[in-house]
Formats: sequence, structure tokens, C-alpha cells
Amino acid sequence: MITTIVHVYVKPEHIDDFVKACQANHEASVKEAGNLRFDILQDANYPAKFVLYEAYSSEEAALAHRETSHYLKWRDTVAPFMAQSREGVKHKILFPKSV
Amino acid sequence: MITTIVHVYVKPEHIDDFVKACQANHEASVKEAGNLRFDILQDANYPAKFVLYEAYSSEEAALAHRETSHYLKWRDTVAPFMAQSREGVKHKILFPKSV
Repeated sequence: MITTIVHVYVKPEHIDDFVKACQANHEASVKEAGNLRFDILQDANYPAKFVLYEAYSSEEAALAHRETSHYLKWRDTVAPFMAQSREGVKHKILFPKSV
Repeated sequence: MITTIVHVYVKPEHIDDFVKACQANHEASVKEAGNLRFDILQDANYPAKFVLYEAYSSEEAALAHRETSHYLKWRDTVAPFMAQSREGVKHKILFPKSV
């Protein structure tokens, strides 16, 4: 199991647009084979800072996400909303041992 | 629902000790009332860097975690393993709307 923690800084005037795009991406992503979690988080102190917490059963399942139509639509939709390039950090999930 | 993302840098010689202590904390924490997730992650590129992803149904449930015997034991056990002070960042969970 692997997780990518994606850090996103959004232009303040596009916070609502970003949340709307993420909702659509979330709803489709959780239906993917191998998806374990696809949590959309908003920093409690900095509302223009978001985290996407994306857990998959395998590297292959995580890579397949990048080829889905909903991911590609999200990527293109949110591009103008970004205040800076987003950063994804890969992690191994140690516990739980299975989800 | 709220999530705390805790960033932990461990002394390399104590990685295995830290993982063992986290397993015990994980196993007890997921049984707490209001706990939604308690994922223990290891950075894929920096094995001495960990993330604890702790989601609770409410602020009260998250605070109650800090008073449990397993949290207090974990805190004291891992203190000498830390390479630097850990940092917890609070987030609101936007999606899923319920877990």
C-alpha cells in the first residue's frame, strides 16, 4: 500500500472553485480499483492550503489514477487556481497492514 | 471531522524502535470512539521521516486521544527516538463527507 500526500496552495479567490473540482475528483477516485483513501483536506489555519491524501493498494493502482478521465479533468480545471506548483510526497503505509 | 498530520523525524538508529511503538499506538487508537483513521506512514525516500495521519469525528474525540494510556505510553517511549521536535498540522476533512 502506498500513499501520496499532495500539498496544494490555491489562489485565495479560487478556493471555492478548487473545492468544487476536488469534490468531483474525490467522488470518482474512490470508485477506482485499488483506491483505499482519497481524502481532501483544508488546513485549519490557512484556508488556501489543501492536502490530498491518496492511498492505493499498489503502485500500479496509483499510476492508473493518473490516466483516468476524472484526474485529467481535475488537473486541467485546477491548473489556473494554483498559487504555486503542487508537491506530492510518496509514503509507504506501515499500519494498518490492510485497509 | 478533523485530521492532524504529524511530521516526525527519527534518529536513524531508532527507526525500528519507533515503528514498533507506533504499531502499539495504532492498534489501540483505531479502537477509540470517534477515531476514523490512524495511519502510520514512512516516507518512501527518507526512511527516518514518518507521518502519522490521525482523523477523528470531532475535536473532542481528537483531544481525548491525548489522554489515553496508549498515547501517553507512545509519547514517552518515542521521546528519545526523535531527531527533532515533531510537528502536527490540523486540517478539516472536506471529502469524504462522512467516513
